[in-house]
Amino acid sequence: MEINGVKIKDTYAEAFGIKVSRLLVTAATKKLAKIAATEATGYASSVIGCPAEAGIDGYVPPTETPDGRPGYVIMICNSGKKKLDHELLERIGMGILTAATTAVFNVLEDEDEKLKIGFKLKFFGDGYEKELEIDGRKIHSIPIMSGDFLVESEFGIKNGVAGGNFFILADTKMEALVAAEAAVDAIHAVPGTITPFPGGVVASGSKVGCNSYNFLDASTNEKMCVTLKEEVAETDIDKDIGGIFEIVIDGVTEEQVKSAMREGIKAACTIDGVKEISAGNFGGNLGAYKINLRELF
Amino acid sequence: MEINGVKIKDTYAEAFGIKVSRLLVTAATKKLAKIAATEATGYASSVIGCPAEAGIDGYVPPTETPDGRPGYVIMICNSGKKKLDHELLERIGMGILTAATTAVFNVLEDEDEKLKIGFKLKFFGDGYEKELEIDGRKIHSIPIMSGDFLVESEFGIKNGVAGGNFFILADTKMEALVAAEAAVDAIHAVPGTITPFPGGVVASGSKVGCNSYNFLDASTNEKMCVTLKEEVAETDIDKDIGGIFEIVIDGVTEEQVKSAMREGIKAACTIDGVKEISAGNFGGNLGAYKINLRELF
Amino acid sequence: MEINGVKIKDTYAEAFGIKVSRLLVTAATKKLAKIAATEATGYASSVIGCPAEAGIDGYVPPTETPDGRPGYVIMICNSGKKKLDHELLERIGMGILTAATTAVFNVLEDEDEKLKIGFKLKFFGDGYEKELEIDGRKIHSIPIMSGDFLVESEFGIKNGVAGGNFFILADTKMEALVAAEAAVDAIHAVPGTITPFPGGVVASGSKVGCNSYNFLDASTNEKMCVTLKEEVAETDIDKDIGGIFEIVIDGVTEEQVKSAMREGIKAACTIDGVKEISAGNFGGNLGAYKINLRELF
Amino acid sequence: MEINGVKIKDTYAEAFGIKVSRLLVTAATKKLAKIAATEATGYASSVIGCPAEAGIDGYVPPTETPDGRPGYVIMICNSGKKKLDHELLERIGMGILTAATTAVFNVLEDEDEKLKIGFKLKFFGDGYEKELEIDGRKIHSIPIMSGDFLVESEFGIKNGVAGGNFFILADTKMEALVAAEAAVDAIHAVPGTITPFPGGVVASGSKVGCNSYNFLDASTNEKMCVTLKEEVAETDIDKDIGGIFEIVIDGVTEEQVKSAMREGIKAACTIDGVKEISAGNFGGNLGAYKINLRELF
Repeated sequence: MEINGVKIKDTYAEAFGIKVSRLLVTAATKKLAKIAATEATGYASSVIGCPAEAGIDGYVPPTETPDGRPGYVIMICNSGKKKLDHELLERIGMGILTAATTAVFNVLEDEDEKLKIGFKLKFFGDGYEKELEIDGRKIHSIPIMSGDFLVESEFGIKNGVAGGNFFILADTKMEALVAAEAAVDAIHAVPGTITPFPGGVVASGSKVGCNSYNFLDASTNEKMCVTLKEEVAETDIDKDIGGIFEIVIDGVTEEQVKSAMREGIKAACTIDGVKEISAGNFGGNLGAYKINLRELF
Repeated sequence: MEINGVKIKDTYAEAFGIKVSRLLVTAATKKLAKIAATEATGYASSVIGCPAEAGIDGYVPPTETPDGRPGYVIMICNSGKKKLDHELLERIGMGILTAATTAVFNVLEDEDEKLKIGFKLKFFGDGYEKELEIDGRKIHSIPIMSGDFLVESEFGIKNGVAGGNFFILADTKMEALVAAEAAVDAIHAVPGTITPFPGGVVASGSKVGCNSYNFLDASTNEKMCVTLKEEVAETDIDKDIGGIFEIVIDGVTEEQVKSAMREGIKAACTIDGVKEISAGNFGGNLGAYKINLRELF
Repeated sequence: MEINGVKIKDTYAEAFGIKVSRLLVTAATKKLAKIAATEATGYASSVIGCPAEAGIDGYVPPTETPDGRPGYVIMICNSGKKKLDHELLERIGMGILTAATTAVFNVLEDEDEKLKIGFKLKFFGDGYEKELEIDGRKIHSIPIMSGDFLVESEFGIKNGVAGGNFFILADTKMEALVAAEAAVDAIHAVPGTITPFPGGVVASGSKVGCNSYNFLDASTNEKMCVTLKEEVAETDIDKDIGGIFEIVIDGVTEEQVKSAMREGIKAACTIDGVKEISAGNFGGNLGAYKINLRELF
Repeated sequence: MEINGVKIKDTYAEAFGIKVSRLLVTAATKKLAKIAATEATGYASSVIGCPAEAGIDGYVPPTETPDGRPGYVIMICNSGKKKLDHELLERIGMGILTAATTAVFNVLEDEDEKLKIGFKLKFFGDGYEKELEIDGRKIHSIPIMSGDFLVESEFGIKNGVAGGNFFILADTKMEALVAAEAAVDAIHAVPGTITPFPGGVVASGSKVGCNSYNFLDASTNEKMCVTLKEEVAETDIDKDIGGIFEIVIDGVTEEQVKSAMREGIKAACTIDGVKEISAGNFGGNLGAYKINLRELF
């Protein structure tokens, strides 16, 4: 199977269950909303080493937000409910409440359950907090130095999908990189999905375990390292491949992750020099989801 | 004392000791370096609730970096050595190693001691890692999917200063906000300092403890909340003040924090509507540093 | 009439006919498309002194463009057909053809007539140009140093509307400025409209003619200058107004300009300190359109 | 001669005389200064088809500007004094005076002569303008709707250098593109120089004249077009070259242009896949300057 002359490998992405939340951060201007959204979703590429997986889902113009101000939808995800509760509290409390002119609303649909995030944050108001209703939502208004911070009382969480992924293999590193950027641009238009790695791009796909050092749970995927293709006998890379980047996608639903993979792959295939799209899996026994690349199209 | 008609209050900022590190993140382009620097310093406004305090110190053009590529100096700080070691490992490992085309160098001068961060990260290479020398530095080259990631073997840490701060009080909220942005722009030009809050600006200055809820260690500083000035009898805010933002600065040395405060205050005082510059302290018994505002000038 | 406590003055914006074009600039990545769109629409705030009026209408994700790449819709406008033809040729030829990885498509609907812009640009190919069809469009492929530049053969133009406008009057300059930024963010979500001034905001609304110097056709609108309200006896500004910015909108249709004004005004009224929305007119005898502010709501 | 394994061709860039000006645009914040600087330097890649050549030279922090506010140095250039006078008037009048919170200062050193730009702009004040002195400079304060616009009375111009250039030839288009971006990042750190094309990069190097159509003065440089290398018998491109971009530099002095070329070339040579650096000339009879690539190092 080929798209625009690029081989789509007959393989699948193995993805995992994760608890997801979906928040709308609004502010006086688009720029101010972006600052808060960026801070709250930083240091969140993968739960392997970060305290959460998080990213910006998309921009929402003032015409479509509960308070008529521009906003960004962000997603914050974690492996369990308790960890996600902690990260929501801290990322909202330290990254959004502290940011200028912000408010935060719950925008997850069909949640499995709700966490009392705004309810807990309101105590920061030391008794001066108030309760409002905006757009039919229960909102806590917390007085802060610069004005009042508004936060919805409860935020939904549900079982989502983490680790949807594909690899972009190209003649050269820079072609793979630009293709990865193009893929991220396309995925950004798919609601309910984020690409949690820096700039949406993964430079360092890993394998489970480590052959040389038994104290490590994960290590470089030497069979997919372009600079090792002469050195590693069992390399998975063809001689003519000079650059590989991976895209990792978290989504609210499997369908949204599939849409993101489909649009991302199509965009990557618009870039000259891209030779093959592959995907990462672990034999199919670790993750709850197997997303076959060819079945996306 | 007045600057440009703005009253400089006769008070001091109370600042604290913190362990600091200072890293240079380079990449193929300025934009790619910014992506990695941003991810690695996210979710790091304050150790009260974040796993670190971190921020971008400044941009370094290719002419002045060890590898001739554009880069950003970032600072990562934490209350103790062990915590800082953990954050350096994870923020470099998850936020920079994973980012496209990056390398990381130690740029802290006069360190108290060195942490073997690169040395530990190299094991991700699963035996394929190599050792190089660049610019007289010991560098580990770790093969990753997209190429080789370069990281200096050791990163210095030293006792720095956290929580340098000042308050900007203005007629209105938006004047205080623009003044805060101007202050952050000015501080950005002072090497060895960061403003770790979102966009460099703190919207929600807090007090130690909580009067209404004894389970909280920190809560809103109601005496400095503009929307509470009618409600809180002992308010510290004059009637005509409509907006307050705080700037918090971490620095390698007290002198650098003082320079940042001086330049930030001067910049804030260029904005119409700014009435007073104050600062936050806790009676002088908590922090190791007392920085008197008027002595800055 | 009030919106969110802000007075909507009983007045109208006087707008003018102008020839408009609407182009989609695509590129390998969103960032590259933005670079070209920005260059091609620069130096184009008003035909009073600039060679065109131009701006970015909005972003289009790869899923919705003819070539599956991210793009920006831009509008280029001028007072007559011949001038617009010249500006289209030069702004595409010098600002988009010269930019990395770009292509340009016509996205004006219901045009009055078509200009052979791509047809003329193709001669730059010196005989090596080719003709393609993409998405049912006739495209010229022009070989350039870095690859092939694709440009649609003809671009539609039609009679549009220039100079839709409103004034934001606030207690202070910075409140008016942030409100203007919020308005621009909102207008950006209305298709078929641009805000051609720098950042979308006009700092210097003018009047026709000049009282003191007869060699000038336009000069400062002293009755609306906040720093002159004590000095100019016939000032139109209330004592308590400290800041005024204007938003100017060009659009493909009067309806779209009205939508942009409506959304912009609503957004401006979310900002604290905004006191009144007014609009600019010249007695109603100069422009073809009178857009009454109160009838927008 | 090689740099980092990249061949530096034994050739020269042919550059031309041009009248240059150098302005500092300050504003309340860095972001606001950037907006004005961008508008004023748009549509200015080359005087072949644009009304000027212009670009952003560099950022200046508030600590180093006459008014203590952040600013950008921009350069505006044109072939003759009269044209430059016109462009300075219009680009300042329409792109900076109209932008929020700006001021403009002359920062050209050792000028050949001075143009009365601020003096002429002041008449927009319709008699309400005032004269100030800031930092020893004669400044006109012009009341505008949002406050007062400050502009220096006179701006220096001098004979500068246009069209300094080099070509980056790489295995693939995307490698050449990233190398071009890296070069632009490096050149941005050389004061007194700009890269006037979109994003600093030229995708479409041209030749003088046109073989197939005698009505054109310039046309594609078919010998350097990568997609024509099979088709054009006398191609100047080796078989293995898949991507070429050009960097064009304007500078105040020949020395500064040379520094920019040197730093830009060194930066381009850090990118994998770059094979050769060449330069554009016209036989040496058109331009006043011949800058030999190998003599730069």
